Amino acid sequence: MRAVLHVCTTCRGTDAAAPDAEGPRPGATLLAALADAAPDGVEIRAVECLSACSQGCSVALSAPGKWSYVYGRLMPGDADQILSGARAYAATADGIVPWRERPAIFRKQSLARIPPQE
Amino acid sequence: MRAVLHVCTTCRGTDAAAPDAEGPRPGATLLAALADAAPDGVEIRAVECLSACSQGCSVALSAPGKWSYVYGRLMPGDADQILSGARAYAATADGIVPWRERPAIFRKQSLARIPPQE
Repeated sequence: MRAVLHVCTTCRGTDAAAPDAEGPRPGATLLAALADAAPDGVEIRAVECLSACSQGCSVALSAPGKWSYVYGRLMPGDADQILSGARAYAATADGIVPWRERPAIFRKQSLARIPPQE
Repeated sequence: MRAVLHVCTTCRGTDAAAPDAEGPRPGATLLAALADAAPDGVEIRAVECLSACSQGCSVALSAPGKWSYVYGRLMPGDADQILSGARAYAATADGIVPWRERPAIFRKQSLARIPPQE
């Protein structure tokens, strides 16, 4: 089954209360950094708001039959780690990547996870 | 389709670093406060860890074809609001309860949401 990496394009970064700077939002910049490098088995989709605004930038990983995960406090420079983690997630049966194989941001910046749907 | 309200039973409450007090954890107490009052169309399930430990107690709402939501900083005394929100969620087609119909904790204490799976 294909995993989906949703990337919030409206995230303003960790300082959600800051006034908008000129140019694209940090979430859109993160999407751009990810979009051309989707690993096999991972589809990257833009989404407007993951309701984690105070913890942006944020992304969500989900796939049928697997645990879903949301990560936050991400920066465009984290793209390589996010892609590495998404690749590992896609390769699991249940979405649970062994702890030692998780990139640091997946170990330390999980906002929440949700059990698989039946 | 039936909605599932997952309740984290390992949550220690908002002070996740505090040593365990005697007796059940706040998450287990919250589950007990919810368990006998599931609204029609909502199944309540215990889960060990929603990876929102610094924002506990936490619960997750999900259903096939709907947005999933995770809420945090909950207390056992919030059970009535959680049940009311879960009932409203179960009645939606897509999981998105109109803003004004959401209980206060659903408006203010969302940790994250995840788009529907296909």
